Amino acid sequence: MRAGNLALVLGELDRHGPLTRAALADGTGLTKTTVSKLVGDLIDAGLAVESGAVRDGERGRPGTAVRLSGHRVAALGLEINVDYLAACLVDLTREIRVTRTHPVDNRSLPPSEAIALLRSLATTVLTEAATLGLTIAGAVVALPGPVNPATGAVHRAPNLGWHDVAVTDILDLPLPVTVDNEANLAALGELWFGHGPSLGDFLHVSGEIGIGAGLVVAGDLFRGAHGFAGELGHVVVTPDGPPCRCGGSGCLERYAGQDALLSSGQTLSDLVTRLQASDPEAVTACTQAGTALGIALTTAVNLFDPDTIVLGGIYAPLFPWISTPAARTLHDRLNQMHPKVPTLIVSAAGTNAAPLGAAGSVIQQVIADPMPHIESPLTTPTP
Amino acid sequence: MRAGNLALVLGELDRHGPLTRAALADGTGLTKTTVSKLVGDLIDAGLAVESGAVRDGERGRPGTAVRLSGHRVAALGLEINVDYLAACLVDLTREIRVTRTHPVDNRSLPPSEAIALLRSLATTVLTEAATLGLTIAGAVVALPGPVNPATGAVHRAPNLGWHDVAVTDILDLPLPVTVDNEANLAALGELWFGHGPSLGDFLHVSGEIGIGAGLVVAGDLFRGAHGFAGELGHVVVTPDGPPCRCGGSGCLERYAGQDALLSSGQTLSDLVTRLQASDPEAVTACTQAGTALGIALTTAVNLFDPDTIVLGGIYAPLFPWISTPAARTLHDRLNQMHPKVPTLIVSAAGTNAAPLGAAGSVIQQVIADPMPHIESPLTTPTP
Repeated sequence: MRAGNLALVLGELDRHGPLTRAALADGTGLTKTTVSKLVGDLIDAGLAVESGAVRDGERGRPGTAVRLSGHRVAALGLEINVDYLAACLVDLTREIRVTRTHPVDNRSLPPSEAIALLRSLATTVLTEAATLGLTIAGAVVALPGPVNPATGAVHRAPNLGWHDVAVTDILDLPLPVTVDNEANLAALGELWFGHGPSLGDFLHVSGEIGIGAGLVVAGDLFRGAHGFAGELGHVVVTPDGPPCRCGGSGCLERYAGQDALLSSGQTLSDLVTRLQASDPEAVTACTQAGTALGIALTTAVNLFDPDTIVLGGIYAPLFPWISTPAARTLHDRLNQMHPKVPTLIVSAAGTNAAPLGAAGSVIQQVIADPMPHIESPLTTPTP
Repeated sequence: MRAGNLALVLGELDRHGPLTRAALADGTGLTKTTVSKLVGDLIDAGLAVESGAVRDGERGRPGTAVRLSGHRVAALGLEINVDYLAACLVDLTREIRVTRTHPVDNRSLPPSEAIALLRSLATTVLTEAATLGLTIAGAVVALPGPVNPATGAVHRAPNLGWHDVAVTDILDLPLPVTVDNEANLAALGELWFGHGPSLGDFLHVSGEIGIGAGLVVAGDLFRGAHGFAGELGHVVVTPDGPPCRCGGSGCLERYAGQDALLSSGQTLSDLVTRLQASDPEAVTACTQAGTALGIALTTAVNLFDPDTIVLGGIYAPLFPWISTPAARTLHDRLNQMHPKVPTLIVSAAGTNAAPLGAAGSVIQQVIADPMPHIESPLTTPTP
């Protein structure tokens, strides 16, 4: 009962705060006495804080308001991708407190070494968290492949060459850690740290060495029966196309993944420089990749029917050159049947979308179930 | 309050009945007095009926049980497809009371004439309903294209050649009528009248002249932002393939739709006869269609991640010849990445899956909101 009411009040503060106790009572249907007690508990636990005087809605009476506090609880978001590691720290108000990225070719390392490097990055961030006086509610690791959140393992990440790696066991951090697919988390990152709920139902595409997508429907991630939904990179573009690391052939990844876009040795910023100089070869490469992306997205729209499509990952810096051919293909193939062809927009969550979504999903969990952070206050882990 | 409690009791009877009043009180959390009053109302309204003595769960005491009654309220399911019309009558217990199918080439008729033929078929079934003493809560019309349930219109059904046809207005039946996509309704037909919830999350594929699909997740249809999700027939199989009536090219429909499978003049039963005699040309046609279907389903599994795929419509009689190449393609392309490649099974709801799902969705609505059928009892419409 108390756990549910604490979550009610915290959720109301999250969505609509700062709020007076009277407005909280209105919004939750609880009595003012109950609300005052619960707010007291939340303030004592460092999850909420007095916010000074505000006008109280329609009646215009000034009152003392309460809002979420970013001073005590935070969450750690981590990412292992093919060519980098990332960590970020987000507090309860979803303010981004720390971000760290570490470029490394994880394909050349055994999983245990890549994970040891991530532990080192995470430990640095945890030390900063301690300095900031923040206690960490938990961590989520974003991984480029289908994961099993129950075991903390990644089933198969073909672009890393990983198979059944028990990531959370090997990572062995002194706090609760789970794993999730990076494309899922990047979509949630866009929901919480990017364009947000104004997108309606949206498909967020993460262009990396692999291409993943996360579908957000009514503010929730569509995960599928086994958590493997949204594998846009393995949508078949041409059935007899080049073989793919997934075991199939002609997958989108082979036409529009990072390796297809960057000829050997070229970096992403090299490519952007050439595109800005209207280098014909670079423009053609993006037009071909964008057209293939448009074909896969035509299929995705036929199956998912989203309001909006958000392009993130490497497609964000390449947006002007990738999105035009993709949008044209989408329009040409869909406009007769669909009264409203989804628009393509560039991700606002940036390159840290996945670790931000990872940290955000821990914060979401704290807001949905704050009781553990009130009954037995967390101690700051000393890494 | 009363409306909600009536729905609680009726829902409990639907899922778990027959039940004693004591078991209903346990299951709903209502008092026995309240349950007795509500059950009385449901019995008076003809929605429930005394069911004789049953043992009352664990305690083993015999008691008088109550169950849903099929004697008063029923629903009309209708379908307009390219080469037939169908109507069926389903009672509150989801027993199928009447089914009628009328073969007709609706492509050769103006929409108003096709709809007039459907009205005539519906009127026949409504007369039978009156004879059976059934009152009709409403009707849903299954249509082969994206529909707007709010207006009762079909936006565009390219295989019928229809564009913005106000179906419910023209049909003008003396009862509440809405419209829905036939592939969506066929999926619900499979859920309620076919294999049912044992399928887990499933994709139901309706092979007709067009190919639609309905994804059922946790017992609910996944509709997308505009109700257009599941357009499997327009998943791109080969980007530079033959042009499709949708305005795209190389869509699955061009490889595995009924027109692609049946060479001109041949009927479905001709094809089945030839397949049973191992006619090489017929077997090759099905292998090619099944392989294309397997490619589109590979894509659908990568995006939707269902437990099971159900093949219905014309794929039901063709199942032995279509499913083998489709399953092989699916396995070859997915087995390295997916720990469990979904199995293909044949639809159990049969050729009437869509009108059954249509009638079932009206019944679902009655069970979710029985109040209108209690406050002002419906009169049997006299067509």
